[in-house]
Amino acid sequence: MNKPANAFYAQSGGVTSVINASACGVIETVNKSSKINKVLCGKNGILGALNEELFDTSKEKKSEIAKLRQTPGGAFGSCRFKLQDPIKQKKEYLRLFEVFKAHNIEYFFYNGGGDSQDTTFKVSKMAKKLKLPLTCIGIPKTVDNDLPITDCSPGFGSVAKYVATSTLEAGLDVKSMSETSTKVFILEVMGRHAGWIAAASALASKNETDPPHIILMPEVPFVKKKFIDKVKQTVANEGFCVVVASEGTRYKNGMFLADSGLTDAFGHKQLGGVAPVLAQMISSIGLKNHWAVSDYLQRSARHISSKTDLDQAYAVGKKAVEFALSGKNAVMPVIRRLSDKPYKWKIESASLSKVANVEKTLPKSYISNDGFRVTNKGLNYLRPLIQGEPPITFKDGVPIIAKLKNILVNKKLSNY
Amino acid sequence: MNKPANAFYAQSGGVTSVINASACGVIETVNKSSKINKVLCGKNGILGALNEELFDTSKEKKSEIAKLRQTPGGAFGSCRFKLQDPIKQKKEYLRLFEVFKAHNIEYFFYNGGGDSQDTTFKVSKMAKKLKLPLTCIGIPKTVDNDLPITDCSPGFGSVAKYVATSTLEAGLDVKSMSETSTKVFILEVMGRHAGWIAAASALASKNETDPPHIILMPEVPFVKKKFIDKVKQTVANEGFCVVVASEGTRYKNGMFLADSGLTDAFGHKQLGGVAPVLAQMISSIGLKNHWAVSDYLQRSARHISSKTDLDQAYAVGKKAVEFALSGKNAVMPVIRRLSDKPYKWKIESASLSKVANVEKTLPKSYISNDGFRVTNKGLNYLRPLIQGEPPITFKDGVPIIAKLKNILVNKKLSNY
Repeated sequence: MNKPANAFYAQSGGVTSVINASACGVIETVNKSSKINKVLCGKNGILGALNEELFDTSKEKKSEIAKLRQTPGGAFGSCRFKLQDPIKQKKEYLRLFEVFKAHNIEYFFYNGGGDSQDTTFKVSKMAKKLKLPLTCIGIPKTVDNDLPITDCSPGFGSVAKYVATSTLEAGLDVKSMSETSTKVFILEVMGRHAGWIAAASALASKNETDPPHIILMPEVPFVKKKFIDKVKQTVANEGFCVVVASEGTRYKNGMFLADSGLTDAFGHKQLGGVAPVLAQMISSIGLKNHWAVSDYLQRSARHISSKTDLDQAYAVGKKAVEFALSGKNAVMPVIRRLSDKPYKWKIESASLSKVANVEKTLPKSYISNDGFRVTNKGLNYLRPLIQGEPPITFKDGVPIIAKLKNILVNKKLSNY
Repeated sequence: MNKPANAFYAQSGGVTSVINASACGVIETVNKSSKINKVLCGKNGILGALNEELFDTSKEKKSEIAKLRQTPGGAFGSCRFKLQDPIKQKKEYLRLFEVFKAHNIEYFFYNGGGDSQDTTFKVSKMAKKLKLPLTCIGIPKTVDNDLPITDCSPGFGSVAKYVATSTLEAGLDVKSMSETSTKVFILEVMGRHAGWIAAASALASKNETDPPHIILMPEVPFVKKKFIDKVKQTVANEGFCVVVASEGTRYKNGMFLADSGLTDAFGHKQLGGVAPVLAQMISSIGLKNHWAVSDYLQRSARHISSKTDLDQAYAVGKKAVEFALSGKNAVMPVIRRLSDKPYKWKIESASLSKVANVEKTLPKSYISNDGFRVTNKGLNYLRPLIQGEPPITFKDGVPIIAKLKNILVNKKLSNY
């Protein structure tokens, strides 16, 4: 009897605090099955397949694989690398298939956002065309929550919880300082094209007067006068004002605020950063302000991940394997919401053809009429996603992370 | 029999994630004692005393007072407001004493950093001079860890844990992206004159090659070429580089990298934005980078506070009351370290005359020869301070905070 085939798993694009939980779901589920031999992980995503750099997960301790659930970042390395269009350039695909054949790989699991699902789809089409025995399953991941069909994207719930918690905490800070010091606090969060993450800050608020008072989302064109008026009014009414701004906040003409060419006190051009640009506007009306840019902190903050999100991240990894074993191909596990309260969900499958290259932005019904707040409908969507605090263990005061050996399999092919 | 006298408690300067635990320690200890009637808290620090705006803590539920242990920010409002020099301007002191007399206040508890201890000292001297029955106790608080005599300052251990954890997490993120994307990540943390907070990031590291690779502290003059060389070398060796920079990073001539030219009420320069300045330097050598500025997030992040720090914050509040009851005056509770491993500490008292206006920076022996790392001696000092994860409860996905009524007592005097 032949040895069962192997599976290839790789992480792609920006990582999250729970993408390794999906990896854990894939590896643990494969290890329980007799139909797939083992998981080989691509070093730095799809590059690992092209370069024949494959980590052999069968060499890892089970206990360390289990710790992937509490390890942020991409444990096998991720990449920002898009395969060429197969019509223009078949070479990359043929190399992939050559490597897969050399290592008896018949399952391709690719964990990423929209671009990565597009890649998975292209690989599946090419494999089908060449009549290769390759099952291709996409696994959703993105803090941006912009994948279609799925109710939410694994990775988002945790960044949403981080942003809501940070807004609550920093809001208390600035409130207590506001009488004689800082009046306005600005928190810049991720979201270049969609305001999901900024919108999640609204979950910090119990009453209408609670922070965040102003949420800036890419879906709502930024109007400086309207913004400044709202800041002034909020400071007049509440004594302070908390602003949460998407990095992709932009003017009506599409220009990002972060690209608006402002300079610091020395005349140096500020690199990126919508928060310092807003801070400068607020300083110019004489209000003392502070700003924070959470950048990678928000998407790697496993210490404040959402249990819902972590469970879903694991579940899509597990389900991806189950789909493959049941004969599905060219699909991605998606989360379907069954009810808001109590929150219930299940995993279904969606065809990659419907997922690739579609970007989901905030629906208009989730944004208040003034464009600065989130409606109850939006809050009802968001709230379940940040529920629960998953267990996490610490050593010497910092979180314990998986210690993988990441042992490469022996190469069988010449260099790419 | 006369009613026992009341105590006044107020919060001063920048708040922390555990300053309310000190408030809790004061209030709960007073409530257990028959010698002090109750605690009246100044609304917005010392301003509350001047303006006769006093919150009556006896109107609060015990359960909400207990929740102060898990509520960041300043629950009664803080202030950046320094009393005038008593020799030049006695008016403010006389007003304070008038308000204290009107509300039967014979205990003055002032919770703050170096400037606030100076205020407490001045009040105690003036009260003594006027032979008033006022016991003055300072309660230490500052994320900057720059108070003298005390082994550490309540508030610091929690920001240290936040920074160490965030460095660990973001380090994993950038490591996984570094092959094809971001090579350098910069985290800007607080610390104007002392590098304690930046130094704490070293606790993220288990091996010499782990992040953070470069720590910039105000104690070490910044030399651009040396910095850039170290970044290049780290990227060459490790594939990526994590930099943690104090906001107060400065050149040999004393100029801050991020000098914005603004000053606060204490005359301190307002800083912000060393990260984008460093990012620009790194971009100019062609290395893709990301940067984060944690600002208020770090000092309000009660969700990742250190248990050691929280316990000490409560303990200095409790001890302040006990000192007052035992007849001590013009003192501040300080933490004395009894051993590193196992970590043991106790509370002693220090004379305010020795605390006021002394700033403790990082000892040279804590900084590596190249100026970019923390020595083992420094790590041994820092490590115990971030130990332990105190309990915290959540509702609807975000931390539960104390809901105080903050009811003002009736005014008895004319407006100030």
